[in-house]
Amino acid sequence: MGKARLEAFSDGVLAIIITIMVLELKVPHGSDWPALQPLLPVFLSYVLSFIYIGIYWSNHHHMLHTMKRVNGSILWANLHLLFWLSLVPFVTGWMGENHFAALPTALYGVVLFMAAAAYFVLQYCIISANGGKESLLAKAVERDRKGKVSQLLYAIAIPVAFWEQWLADALYVLVAIIWLIPDRRIERMIEE
Amino acid sequence: MGKARLEAFSDGVLAIIITIMVLELKVPHGSDWPALQPLLPVFLSYVLSFIYIGIYWSNHHHMLHTMKRVNGSILWANLHLLFWLSLVPFVTGWMGENHFAALPTALYGVVLFMAAAAYFVLQYCIISANGGKESLLAKAVERDRKGKVSQLLYAIAIPVAFWEQWLADALYVLVAIIWLIPDRRIERMIEE
Amino acid sequence: MGKARLEAFSDGVLAIIITIMVLELKVPHGSDWPALQPLLPVFLSYVLSFIYIGIYWSNHHHMLHTMKRVNGSILWANLHLLFWLSLVPFVTGWMGENHFAALPTALYGVVLFMAAAAYFVLQYCIISANGGKESLLAKAVERDRKGKVSQLLYAIAIPVAFWEQWLADALYVLVAIIWLIPDRRIERMIEE
Amino acid sequence: MGKARLEAFSDGVLAIIITIMVLELKVPHGSDWPALQPLLPVFLSYVLSFIYIGIYWSNHHHMLHTMKRVNGSILWANLHLLFWLSLVPFVTGWMGENHFAALPTALYGVVLFMAAAAYFVLQYCIISANGGKESLLAKAVERDRKGKVSQLLYAIAIPVAFWEQWLADALYVLVAIIWLIPDRRIERMIEE
Repeated sequence: MGKARLEAFSDGVLAIIITIMVLELKVPHGSDWPALQPLLPVFLSYVLSFIYIGIYWSNHHHMLHTMKRVNGSILWANLHLLFWLSLVPFVTGWMGENHFAALPTALYGVVLFMAAAAYFVLQYCIISANGGKESLLAKAVERDRKGKVSQLLYAIAIPVAFWEQWLADALYVLVAIIWLIPDRRIERMIEE
Repeated sequence: MGKARLEAFSDGVLAIIITIMVLELKVPHGSDWPALQPLLPVFLSYVLSFIYIGIYWSNHHHMLHTMKRVNGSILWANLHLLFWLSLVPFVTGWMGENHFAALPTALYGVVLFMAAAAYFVLQYCIISANGGKESLLAKAVERDRKGKVSQLLYAIAIPVAFWEQWLADALYVLVAIIWLIPDRRIERMIEE
Repeated sequence: MGKARLEAFSDGVLAIIITIMVLELKVPHGSDWPALQPLLPVFLSYVLSFIYIGIYWSNHHHMLHTMKRVNGSILWANLHLLFWLSLVPFVTGWMGENHFAALPTALYGVVLFMAAAAYFVLQYCIISANGGKESLLAKAVERDRKGKVSQLLYAIAIPVAFWEQWLADALYVLVAIIWLIPDRRIERMIEE
Repeated sequence: MGKARLEAFSDGVLAIIITIMVLELKVPHGSDWPALQPLLPVFLSYVLSFIYIGIYWSNHHHMLHTMKRVNGSILWANLHLLFWLSLVPFVTGWMGENHFAALPTALYGVVLFMAAAAYFVLQYCIISANGGKESLLAKAVERDRKGKVSQLLYAIAIPVAFWEQWLADALYVLVAIIWLIPDRRIERMIEE
């Protein structure tokens, strides 16, 4: 019931978030290299956030694939996740424009941390409504090392940003790399 | 006939509305706390409007779920609802930038009032075209206390905004809370 | 083949066009009535264009409903229509900001004229690929008085804008009203 | 598995990219011809990029049509393509605002080149996961003269832009024309 529409709405919001970020790459007035140079950190933060939203879209895609039943809690847990992700363009632009300064870098981590937490809540709601601990999804994510490590790394990166900002940025890149190694857990479960 | 496309178009517009609002959160030039502080009221108004659009999406989702027949009136009643909701980013931004001043707060209420009225018109059109008073939807929303209370609270909040603006804002928050308690009416009817 | 995706892409573009227009309603800095007043013509032009895009979406919806076969010509005729409609936010904003001055009003007419012409081309391509003159759609739009009258009125409005701009604006409103009276031709044909 | 959602997300992103570009056509303050004139190069670059995104959408549409199996590599190859296409609005705006100056023209070519390369990678991933060299798609694109010629012309245009910028622009227009002649390869294969 209504799964198609939940996916369509999420796809719409994620597609807009991922595309709207490029608007922070403001067209410069000059037409030479020096005009382009200040955009480099904005571009790098765009690449990082594009990958993060891509990871969320891909995992969201896999998670909803196993779902059979939709209820009110799932609708709102999903909106809650989209809320935190909708803040990504703002923190991306802020971090990029300020050359990865301490506070913007920390806030970027806070938004990523909250989005990851919202993802867990959504996962919990879907499992509850779709067979509980015996469900396909529950088994697939039982250990969920990647998710736990990501949460931990975000939590470390936030205070670290005020001490050594580049280390925090490196942690965000690390988490992205961890996830880019594709998550075959659910795929494998289905095949078995 | 055409129900899927009506849903897809509505989902698209609602996804854009909910995401475009975040563009009002303009990236500040500084990178410290004082630079972030003026954004607080804009952020709060964003959260409130995000929840409102989420509520509309969720209710719209449930209402269209029961619908079997689409006609011209439903298409236009739906566009009418989307028109008022498309003004939400504007009034949200105006209210946020002016720290919930009297006139923006009142105008926010006017847009919410008109959107709620447009929702009732859409509901009426769907019931008319899908079995009338004996239909599933008609029975599910027969009493519709939430809808009536919301309309009343908006109508109260609009003049109150000019007298005590924070009271009006509190009323908007109250309506959002009323709706966040999930509307199980239609879900229950279907199960029965 | 591929009809669903053609609809989805068109819905996406139309949803964005209709929503992006509201961004021309720039949040004013003051919070009183005088701050709101200069937005009135922008708002009026927004309402007019919202209705026009709504009409196109609704007619497009009906036209594609009868379609069975998609080919390359239809894809490109559809993109051509979307191109002209994508210019609507620009001419709407220009017309609104200049209080319906002569040249913006005329250009608004040019874009509407070209969009209407593109719609005819799309209609022709769909009829060609779906049974020709004997097809359901061909019969439904055989006379197409509304379409021809609209084209004529746009063609009149463009030069008239330089002479008496309000008359041209009145013609645009008139065309919108003509179409708002719902087009039951195709609906009726299907029922018969 | 999941093909519908991959298409929906891609359609969403492409629809937003194609529509967001029009935002670079900033509403001018005057209401006469001289106010409109500086927008001409921006408009021309918009037309060119609209056609390019249309070509990508159309080819993407045909390519995914033959696809039966989706896996993680396809998801990411698709996101990689969307990443490069998401930069099109930026380079379009930069090229338009600077009247097709050398560096923006060259960068436009770089983005087109990378998007074309990403398209090939996606094609390769789809073929690998859907039957390999014996698959319908593999046979349809076996020679792929258009694709190879485009890549070559982009590679030529990039250095040429620094020497004779108009020649580079002419090459971009030429590639667009090559592709506008519809690609019936896949269509023909399916019919056979």
